[in-house]
Amino acid sequence: MKTEINPDIRAALDAIADRPVSHVFLVACGGSLSIMHAGKYFIDRHSDVLTSDIYNGDEFVARDPRKLGPDTLVILCSQTGTTKETVRAAAHARARGAATIGMTLDADSPLAKAVDHVVAYQASYTTGIPIDAADSNYGVLYMILAGLIRNREVTTKLLSSLGNLQPAIDKAHVQYASRFAQFAERFRDKPVIYTVASGANYGAAYSFAICVFMEMLWINSQAIHADEFFHGPFEVVDSEASFVCMIGLDETRRLEERARDFLYRFGDKNQVLVVDARELDLAGIDEAFRGYLVPLIFFDALWKFAYRLAEQRGKIMLEDRRYMKKISDY
Amino acid sequence: MKTEINPDIRAALDAIADRPVSHVFLVACGGSLSIMHAGKYFIDRHSDVLTSDIYNGDEFVARDPRKLGPDTLVILCSQTGTTKETVRAAAHARARGAATIGMTLDADSPLAKAVDHVVAYQASYTTGIPIDAADSNYGVLYMILAGLIRNREVTTKLLSSLGNLQPAIDKAHVQYASRFAQFAERFRDKPVIYTVASGANYGAAYSFAICVFMEMLWINSQAIHADEFFHGPFEVVDSEASFVCMIGLDETRRLEERARDFLYRFGDKNQVLVVDARELDLAGIDEAFRGYLVPLIFFDALWKFAYRLAEQRGKIMLEDRRYMKKISDY
Repeated sequence: MKTEINPDIRAALDAIADRPVSHVFLVACGGSLSIMHAGKYFIDRHSDVLTSDIYNGDEFVARDPRKLGPDTLVILCSQTGTTKETVRAAAHARARGAATIGMTLDADSPLAKAVDHVVAYQASYTTGIPIDAADSNYGVLYMILAGLIRNREVTTKLLSSLGNLQPAIDKAHVQYASRFAQFAERFRDKPVIYTVASGANYGAAYSFAICVFMEMLWINSQAIHADEFFHGPFEVVDSEASFVCMIGLDETRRLEERARDFLYRFGDKNQVLVVDARELDLAGIDEAFRGYLVPLIFFDALWKFAYRLAEQRGKIMLEDRRYMKKISDY
Repeated sequence: MKTEINPDIRAALDAIADRPVSHVFLVACGGSLSIMHAGKYFIDRHSDVLTSDIYNGDEFVARDPRKLGPDTLVILCSQTGTTKETVRAAAHARARGAATIGMTLDADSPLAKAVDHVVAYQASYTTGIPIDAADSNYGVLYMILAGLIRNREVTTKLLSSLGNLQPAIDKAHVQYASRFAQFAERFRDKPVIYTVASGANYGAAYSFAICVFMEMLWINSQAIHADEFFHGPFEVVDSEASFVCMIGLDETRRLEERARDFLYRFGDKNQVLVVDARELDLAGIDEAFRGYLVPLIFFDALWKFAYRLAEQRGKIMLEDRRYMKKISDY
């Protein structure tokens, strides 16, 4: 059970404690960018001082916001630490005088070398070794942000909640197994599967759409924001349309419920895979933190769904790629 | 030719001149939300004082950012002024003490009544009457933001550029006519068409994906950020995959070029509709403002493409809907 913020995070926060940080840039690419949506949601809900922006690494460098400077903190994330755009973004941020924290699995990676402060996290997907979700990308990002916000009560509740996260994930895997097997069959031949979410969950929906459906399964997709759904996207709904709906526990829950209700009514219920956090056993996770931790539980649980779907679609190897890391000169 | 900011915008800016506005929330839904991406790009490039966030109307209300308060300005937009989520967002912002500016076509609409200051703009799509693009949603938003930034040189260049925007749009329509006819044939039977852009253009790509392809043509889509493309989405590319690529003139141009180059190399060139602002006659538009005005030119030009595509696909009436404004109780 965690009682203190991880030592490398503590060291990074102590090192920048004297900086008048008023703005945080959350910068990464793809799956690592997706977690930043939950981070920004946390900042928005907890701070009336800090403002924040989420940018893809290359967008950040090219856009070069005028706000970027010594009173800003740039938090970057790259699993391998080799994502070129994110490494360039770190160098750019330092050149502008900003403080930089780099989250990565590899303390010797180019990203680790490009930032002021390296923060380690754990991931089971790449290594195959079971981890404690408290030290996942989400967990570590929340620890950094709770430390920045300097609210001891928030930090204490976060740490006790993180300590109970892995059991909640393990139980979610068991709970969803049969539903996922069923929907993997239903989605076997579907050319397009959308994800829908809002608030803290949006990033998990984004990652599942672009990294899992598009990248790993070569299925067309889009992560549709649950209310934006009603301002255009919902017109594609018919009895053939397939969706994964995330229904979380943050303040935007009613948006997600509304999208689900519409899909149940005008689509085919058998083509709408709903994961609702109210079904989960979240024992030990503080009420105030459930909304923030649910997207990680959803994403981790749905990872198994990706495997079931790959089997059904005759693409057993989720690791197969056409371009990523196969072709290097683009 | 404009030499002054529109009087209603001037009045709104004067009224909030004494407020210590440090943060701007850009709030709307769907197509009206899409223009906010260009607005934020403009703020990011021109101000080291103002920070900003873009939120869907209901996300904004539910999220209820702690930053929202008397030192913030909330700019809202709804064409008809009847979008419920945006009207609720205006009421929420006022209840939190923020200043509110509402952009709408209808000065008697619910949005107009819910905000402190109403700013009118023009749209040809709904009315069918030709307009001057200087007074379009993009034009009006930039005038508000330039006024907020209080840089006289920027405002002067913006106004002279806006005065030359409509001729540039008219020429773009002529220039793209044959290309659009050709691609409408090529895209006739396509179940999925993606849009790709970055920077100031991202909103135009978003709007074309969700409001035109999905809402009006019932074609599956996603607006893919030009660099995020390489972190997942590009794995769906094969010789059948269809894309609309926007290549603009802002600082992120190289990101858009890179996505186009990849698609030309690994996809089928006949399935990649590129609009490149370097092809356009932008006479009279200041170099410094071209990047910001190009998305409006692209979106307006591509509107004609939507009609060509509707004809090819046997859906002549772009106005047909299954749900929007047909069903009211969702």
